[in-house]
Amino acid sequence: MINPFDDNYFMKKALEEAEAAFDKGEVPVGAVIVIDNRIIARAHNLTEQLNDVTAHAEMQAITSAANFLGGKYLENCTLYVTLEPCQMCAGALYWSQISKIVYAANDPKRGCGAMATKLHPKTKMTGGLLEKEASELLKRFFIQKRNLN
Amino acid sequence: MINPFDDNYFMKKALEEAEAAFDKGEVPVGAVIVIDNRIIARAHNLTEQLNDVTAHAEMQAITSAANFLGGKYLENCTLYVTLEPCQMCAGALYWSQISKIVYAANDPKRGCGAMATKLHPKTKMTGGLLEKEASELLKRFFIQKRNLN
Repeated sequence: MINPFDDNYFMKKALEEAEAAFDKGEVPVGAVIVIDNRIIARAHNLTEQLNDVTAHAEMQAITSAANFLGGKYLENCTLYVTLEPCQMCAGALYWSQISKIVYAANDPKRGCGAMATKLHPKTKMTGGLLEKEASELLKRFFIQKRNLN
Repeated sequence: MINPFDDNYFMKKALEEAEAAFDKGEVPVGAVIVIDNRIIARAHNLTEQLNDVTAHAEMQAITSAANFLGGKYLENCTLYVTLEPCQMCAGALYWSQISKIVYAANDPKRGCGAMATKLHPKTKMTGGLLEKEASELLKRFFIQKRNLN
């Protein structure tokens, strides 16, 4: 039987969020948080619009998911995010004790891997899913931005 | 001439915020952000009340200061915080490019020092100011909590 709710499906939803960020002139990063095959939070980067460095997609998604669940720990939840989380977001994910993180594109400069940010022992992380799509959107954004300046 | 607006003065203001957190049953951590001897943001930990792991004092203070300044970079600003920032908060401070961080108590387990979180090259950090007052408030909180459970 085909399971329509696989990692690909949810990462595509995160990519839709990244595209929404792109359309607003924001660095295109999107995220969704899922529990039992149900999306309980969707968010995209809004740092420019909100003038706030803390408004990364993941941060908003964590707040939103906790609000939905009525508790601050994201047990049995998976975060799908189109770019590897930074120190701040990985640090927030540490506190949330989220079960799983799936990201698309690597961030070799400011990602939590390069920065050696610690994840919670309960958290598993994998990367590279739909990496090409996520990276191309980011590249397209920075090329467009360079041409406008 | 006496300068009433020294580091001690502002850390005492951060301690007042920590006491406000204590009174709400929150882990007592407080923060203020200062520019040109003027407090532009005050905040205290609200993770329990908001059911949100991202609601640390520093995170709220960063958002609030950026809102006051109308820009997301906290140039020429100093954060006074009663506990050494964690990975998440240090990661947010990295993005904010804040000029200076002054903290009171060390967090040998989850502080950004122990966790080796990277600060922005523009940021200077010092610790230990009014450490005794900040630590005693934290100890009092955890003793009280233990006795209630």
